[in-house]
Amino acid sequence: MLNTITTRPTRPELVADWEHLFKVFIRPEDDDCKAVLIKYMERILFGLHDFQKTYVGITEAKSLKDLSEAFINTIISENPEKKLADVITCLIKEIAPHAVNVASPYFVGHMTSAIPFFMVHLKTIVAALNQNVVKLETSKVLSVIEKQVIAKIHRLIYNKDQKFYDENVQNADTTLGTFVEGGTTANLTALWVARNKRFAPKNGFSGIEAEGLAAAYKAYGIDRCVVLVSRLGHYSLRKSAGVLGIGNRNVIPIELDERNKVDLGGLKKAINEFKSDSRTCVLAVVGIAGATETGTVDPLEDLADICREHKIHFHVDAAWGGPTLFSQQYKHLLKGIDRADSVTIDGHKQFYMPMSCGMLYLSDPASMDAIAYYANYVNRMGSVDLGIKTLAGSREANSLILDCALKIMGKKGYSLLINHGIETAAAFADEIRKRDTFELVSVPELNILTYRICPADIREKLAASTNENDRRRINETLNNINRDLQRIQREAGNSFVSRTTLRLCRHPEEDIVVLRCVIMNPMTTLDILREILDEQETIFKSRLADML
Amino acid sequence: MLNTITTRPTRPELVADWEHLFKVFIRPEDDDCKAVLIKYMERILFGLHDFQKTYVGITEAKSLKDLSEAFINTIISENPEKKLADVITCLIKEIAPHAVNVASPYFVGHMTSAIPFFMVHLKTIVAALNQNVVKLETSKVLSVIEKQVIAKIHRLIYNKDQKFYDENVQNADTTLGTFVEGGTTANLTALWVARNKRFAPKNGFSGIEAEGLAAAYKAYGIDRCVVLVSRLGHYSLRKSAGVLGIGNRNVIPIELDERNKVDLGGLKKAINEFKSDSRTCVLAVVGIAGATETGTVDPLEDLADICREHKIHFHVDAAWGGPTLFSQQYKHLLKGIDRADSVTIDGHKQFYMPMSCGMLYLSDPASMDAIAYYANYVNRMGSVDLGIKTLAGSREANSLILDCALKIMGKKGYSLLINHGIETAAAFADEIRKRDTFELVSVPELNILTYRICPADIREKLAASTNENDRRRINETLNNINRDLQRIQREAGNSFVSRTTLRLCRHPEEDIVVLRCVIMNPMTTLDILREILDEQETIFKSRLADML
Repeated sequence: MLNTITTRPTRPELVADWEHLFKVFIRPEDDDCKAVLIKYMERILFGLHDFQKTYVGITEAKSLKDLSEAFINTIISENPEKKLADVITCLIKEIAPHAVNVASPYFVGHMTSAIPFFMVHLKTIVAALNQNVVKLETSKVLSVIEKQVIAKIHRLIYNKDQKFYDENVQNADTTLGTFVEGGTTANLTALWVARNKRFAPKNGFSGIEAEGLAAAYKAYGIDRCVVLVSRLGHYSLRKSAGVLGIGNRNVIPIELDERNKVDLGGLKKAINEFKSDSRTCVLAVVGIAGATETGTVDPLEDLADICREHKIHFHVDAAWGGPTLFSQQYKHLLKGIDRADSVTIDGHKQFYMPMSCGMLYLSDPASMDAIAYYANYVNRMGSVDLGIKTLAGSREANSLILDCALKIMGKKGYSLLINHGIETAAAFADEIRKRDTFELVSVPELNILTYRICPADIREKLAASTNENDRRRINETLNNINRDLQRIQREAGNSFVSRTTLRLCRHPEEDIVVLRCVIMNPMTTLDILREILDEQETIFKSRLADML
Repeated sequence: MLNTITTRPTRPELVADWEHLFKVFIRPEDDDCKAVLIKYMERILFGLHDFQKTYVGITEAKSLKDLSEAFINTIISENPEKKLADVITCLIKEIAPHAVNVASPYFVGHMTSAIPFFMVHLKTIVAALNQNVVKLETSKVLSVIEKQVIAKIHRLIYNKDQKFYDENVQNADTTLGTFVEGGTTANLTALWVARNKRFAPKNGFSGIEAEGLAAAYKAYGIDRCVVLVSRLGHYSLRKSAGVLGIGNRNVIPIELDERNKVDLGGLKKAINEFKSDSRTCVLAVVGIAGATETGTVDPLEDLADICREHKIHFHVDAAWGGPTLFSQQYKHLLKGIDRADSVTIDGHKQFYMPMSCGMLYLSDPASMDAIAYYANYVNRMGSVDLGIKTLAGSREANSLILDCALKIMGKKGYSLLINHGIETAAAFADEIRKRDTFELVSVPELNILTYRICPADIREKLAASTNENDRRRINETLNNINRDLQRIQREAGNSFVSRTTLRLCRHPEEDIVVLRCVIMNPMTTLDILREILDEQETIFKSRLADML
């Protein structure tokens, strides 16, 4: 079936002419076409969860190789290849089944999951309005709404007083935050702001943004900048340092404590060592609020103290964990986040918004002045154009989706999701502990946990072993088993957990392959997670146990 | 009416509980709600052009100040504020009228315009699938389709042989291009690639991405990098140089010739001067294919020759003009683009895709290796994960929209749009020339032109003037008139042209405020443009002429 997608010949009756063009701009080609569109769009808009129900994971009969072979034609046809209704039909019948059913409650491997069906409606409206929030002239009320929703989330994080928000919510000169493409560009923007504030203009020097990094280092008498973050820091921090000219090697990984949080002793030691060299500058410390691999949260209050003492920019990467602030029961886990200079939060993660939506928030409404850009045709000085202080130029009005979602869900609606994830992860951890076949590797603090196949007798052997080579050999075998297990389960297609490689506090020299679960779908129950464990046990016992 | 948006009290019956939550995740609250949604979604999906018909520009009674005052509440409510159907109703009835009607054929001021209605359907499907193309495990077939459509556009630009595309279209190790958020991040990525290739690892130096820019300059024995582009280069190039640590002051503006193209003599002179200083490196030359302000195209073939001679990275910013390649009649205007090392094209501009979609294409399929990043949990070495070589992490599958659009439109469909824009702009220029009140400032090469109010007698006076102060005084008055005119017309709300400030080749020391038209909406006819000129004449004669 798939091959028909690419080999179906161009139908001679399809000609690109003005009549055709007006139709695709304004309305369906004919009533039949409209009927087909309505049929499918209604399925898409109201039946998100039934839509791919028969498929889960990257699982269907076609291998990636076979799939690739069907998509090799690189010539754009002269005339239309297909009518709109046929394109939509093909998408639903032939493409969607080969996509990944991230909405399934059995898909617990990544930070991409089911989204409320209304999010698709809101995205549709944003697309139909096609506003460009780079400037007021192409967005008007959407820019105003964006400023308001940014202030709302800023208040959730920083909780400053009413006067502060009254002064800033619609203030054209100040910026409480910005919408960006995702967590990576949010982290990049945070370090960009920190870099530019650190190497600000001074006598005879016009600032790093104007003169460049080499000139800035010279003007400030240093040779090197470092950014400190625990070993669990997201790779986007390295990428950001690379892009910004700081060098990704200068993102210094700090060791973990036993709870997978940054080791404060190690951090202080590193700061003191770097500060003892007057040619090195500690640009920023990054605290993680929801590590990608383990979901753990660094001790933000302590990090804030350390950063204040040493006058270092304190950034919190809460791309994952930020919405925990909605939960009365669990918001204490992020205590200290209100003392961060900047905070990353992703909309497409635990705000359950469609891809792609990231955000950056700043404690100081003047911080982003350090990255302002103007042009004659857009972002004029003194205007409220939102493109002045942000990495991107043109961008869609995703802020409208968040604003509406907050109204539809309320804090309590999001809180239910957060609580469900955290509590289901804790129950799942208990279940793993009960089963002899598994070892819980990272205890969940939020809604992410890691574990591995490691039968009780092997665990005892590892615990008793004093010979490092023995340990390593056993762990290598376990790594192969867990790698194979994850692949076999994924290919079977009933469920999907991901895998990553961790280095544990107690044996930081050893790579440990672990299975990783992210519990964000409210339909994911403990029973479903038990089924996933059952399947893993079956696969292990029937196909992999003899590797031990 | 607007005030009711924020002051309507939270309805006590709305409570966030699990029942509510399941409903918003899976289906409308009740049949009434579904009926409302269907009513509006059908309007949105099939009536894009009727949708905002009564409004154009940023025009309604509410001033920005009044509008802002309605959006100052910064507290997120505990329980849901509104039912979904009420939120959608409010969007349609109370928010949309205060958005900008960019789809109107009378909205000719910016590069944001009407999009074919099917684009909204496709965006809806992308949102519903919610795939994340950062990795195969959350996108599968969408990653394969993305590679294919990238190869299609690469072929449109570079037209290499069949063997080249067969080898690369689905090759996991090579990269013909990448989807990014927009033109800004495309230009940033191009300069990032150029920077990293120029300061590659060598004996004792691990490369600029790892060690940073200061170490790189030291290793290569230089103090400064420059990027050369005509004065009409987009401000994102300065921003990119700022972000990358090169310094935005090191984007060197080259003067224009009389046709608003980069002056080749000036460029060569600059290159020779910079190259005579062994401590300065000319990192890249940027050719513009469709300048933001004038739509003009630099002589790409000549720039390619110069860059080859001097071994400089040649980037073409075709964010606007790229799709001119679809037109048999006009693709010659971009001759030489196939010799660029990298090319920026925006999907949300002349591919008529919804916001936000940019793209970068690379001549050499190995170029992007210079910016590759890996992590244990995503983008593993050797995988086909598309997140390895791109600025962003998580991102939506906009490539699917482009792929479908190419099938629905065909090359000829896009060509009709391109030809209409270019030919209508030419006819509009003739119309401006015919009218005594106006001066055509930049002759359209593509579909953008600039002009100003400058009555025939004033033009004669300016041409005859030998006194610089006289000239300046007259131009300042004209600037004020044109600034006021643009504002008055915008506020009247029947149509929208933008304004910018140019420096002309013949008087590069003078700032000239011009009116700017972008003809991309196929519904924008010469008659409509005549109406816009009529209105401008009326405003000028009735309200502004006495300023002269």
